[in-house]
Amino acid sequence: MSTTEKNNQEQMQLNRLRGQIDDLDHQLIELLARRQTVVAEVVAFKKERQLSVYHPAREADMIDIRRHHGREVGLDPDYLEEIFRGIMRYSRSTQTAEISRVGVKPGAKILLVGGGGVMGRLFSRWFTASGYEVRILEVDDWDRVAELCSDLDMAIVSVPIAATVSTITRLAPHLPEDCILADMTSVKEPSVKAMLENFSGPVLGFHPMFGPDTPTMERQIMVVTPGRERPEDRWPAEQFAAWGGVVVRAEAAEHDEIMAIVQALRHFATFTFGRFLYQRRINLKRTLEFSSPIYRLELDMVGRLFAQDPELYSEIIFATPKRLDLLRDYLKSFKNNLEMLADNDKDSDRGRESFVTEFKQIAEWFGPFSDQAIRESGYLINKLIERF
Amino acid sequence: MSTTEKNNQEQMQLNRLRGQIDDLDHQLIELLARRQTVVAEVVAFKKERQLSVYHPAREADMIDIRRHHGREVGLDPDYLEEIFRGIMRYSRSTQTAEISRVGVKPGAKILLVGGGGVMGRLFSRWFTASGYEVRILEVDDWDRVAELCSDLDMAIVSVPIAATVSTITRLAPHLPEDCILADMTSVKEPSVKAMLENFSGPVLGFHPMFGPDTPTMERQIMVVTPGRERPEDRWPAEQFAAWGGVVVRAEAAEHDEIMAIVQALRHFATFTFGRFLYQRRINLKRTLEFSSPIYRLELDMVGRLFAQDPELYSEIIFATPKRLDLLRDYLKSFKNNLEMLADNDKDSDRGRESFVTEFKQIAEWFGPFSDQAIRESGYLINKLIERF
Repeated sequence: MSTTEKNNQEQMQLNRLRGQIDDLDHQLIELLARRQTVVAEVVAFKKERQLSVYHPAREADMIDIRRHHGREVGLDPDYLEEIFRGIMRYSRSTQTAEISRVGVKPGAKILLVGGGGVMGRLFSRWFTASGYEVRILEVDDWDRVAELCSDLDMAIVSVPIAATVSTITRLAPHLPEDCILADMTSVKEPSVKAMLENFSGPVLGFHPMFGPDTPTMERQIMVVTPGRERPEDRWPAEQFAAWGGVVVRAEAAEHDEIMAIVQALRHFATFTFGRFLYQRRINLKRTLEFSSPIYRLELDMVGRLFAQDPELYSEIIFATPKRLDLLRDYLKSFKNNLEMLADNDKDSDRGRESFVTEFKQIAEWFGPFSDQAIRESGYLINKLIERF
Repeated sequence: MSTTEKNNQEQMQLNRLRGQIDDLDHQLIELLARRQTVVAEVVAFKKERQLSVYHPAREADMIDIRRHHGREVGLDPDYLEEIFRGIMRYSRSTQTAEISRVGVKPGAKILLVGGGGVMGRLFSRWFTASGYEVRILEVDDWDRVAELCSDLDMAIVSVPIAATVSTITRLAPHLPEDCILADMTSVKEPSVKAMLENFSGPVLGFHPMFGPDTPTMERQIMVVTPGRERPEDRWPAEQFAAWGGVVVRAEAAEHDEIMAIVQALRHFATFTFGRFLYQRRINLKRTLEFSSPIYRLELDMVGRLFAQDPELYSEIIFATPKRLDLLRDYLKSFKNNLEMLADNDKDSDRGRESFVTEFKQIAEWFGPFSDQAIRESGYLINKLIERF
């Protein structure tokens, strides 16, 4: 047999195998299409009966069963989980796209105070799409305030933190007595207090934990802080849930305490790292060529912060005097850690030993969260390596 | 019909539909398993004939055909592309795991000094799988050093930082003159200097930018620092590349300067944040319920650090006295930022204004990197929301 003949034969054999793969993939797609038809039936069925669509527990069970099945047939369970998460995500997104437009209280009249801001515009779109009557009150519209408030079901104050309390004070007297007064400020104690003091009707605080570039509310978090709530004032929270959002209820004080760390401290620390890189004129591109995906991820966070609005960050960091105290405590803790390390200089291993001891205690306290952190960050690191 | 009967009937109908979905998914998994069997045949076939495995053009064609087919059956082509990219990635990774064993200089004799450590074991497996003769020198093996070094092609010192220079000094006199002497320490100046001073043959420094839990070297970064290199000493770097790694060349000084920031400073800052959470006994779970994906990602990084070996981190942070100086400078910068902010207390907006001015300057310096950061972190945030 000549080399050409041999090569031809080889190519034919390879083509035969490839043909088998193409054929299997063809069958896969047919199955996926049939699956989607059944999903559509489920959606129609649930919609008719107003049943909720997304069942996290059912999804978790489904994943477990499919992982198990995969193991039986010799496939990597993580691989199967990824495939089926993709399939379920698609079926979920077609489900919520169908359902999300349904208004919980369509026709209700909502006033967005500061509705021209980025978050205001976002909610204006969403409420309008779900059949609400949305009105906007901007700085220049106060002469029409009585008209805008007539027959109102909910007023949402969505203005910069510094203007929130004064806006509430000015708005409250114009509201119908059973209208819900709410705000969207990222610090909740002062605004909820101001709403309760200036208005005797129902009061709620909202804090969306997402930015204005979010395409849908699906799986996004909305904090709802109680103020003065009657059973019939639950529709706004139900609407957020109907849009696919996750509603978390928290008292204003707890919310503010957590946000001081989650937002103010983290943003300040990120700012500090960015500024340090800038002051030393570190060659960012070169550091990235070198570095582990973890560092890349961290530098991405820094770059992300500096791509955004400084006013927004200064507003968050300066929101309350308490936040400055928190930063001072953090500085002390940093200094204290450094002194612990510096003990090492004196030719002893004391600093190093204290570091290891301290590290182990903290690790123990982090406990099971660390496993989750490894799993999640490992997953993301792989995504980062695959994609970029 | 009573309400209970009606509910039961509804539940049965829903269960029937869900059963159909489960059944379709069962068939999907069987198909995926059959697909994997055919892929294994392709790999065996190619391996036997030393054909290259990964064909980007064939993959692109496959994706096109599947998108087209999806459109015909009413499925979103983007969705199908994502599913099939996942499937192909899996089959590719099982393929490369098979093939990457090809050695650039098979039969070459490599001594791993400290080969029993985690990184040593990893490279020992990889080199062995690619046809190298791997020898191990542990603390107890120094009486056999002459035998272990006879006819050697490369010695790699992979011991803790503190022991690296003394190990090099001890090993060098036993090496054949054209053997490559290399190390895997994460600080390169002292070790490269020690190798050059104690050995007159070829010298290289390596620093793998990945951990011992990496399944393959595919797309992982390996820093190679030059010491004394002849053209015929390029095979180790070529081997790293053949395993799918990305080889980055950098002088020892540049490497160390960047690593002080990328590793020591970042790890120390992460440690500090974790310790602060611990000292305040912050309810981690509750903060996660509330928070944006960005914070979740940041907390994942902290949790990840504390799940790892404290000795490793203390080694990195304490590697050189310079690193402690860097941390001190960082503390100063932090303090300086805080003082800038605190100006705000005195009823003026000075602090806030300086913050915004400073922020804008840094943002400008970050420049185009910010776009990349937004894109990458946005992609990951979506992955995080989808998945967890």
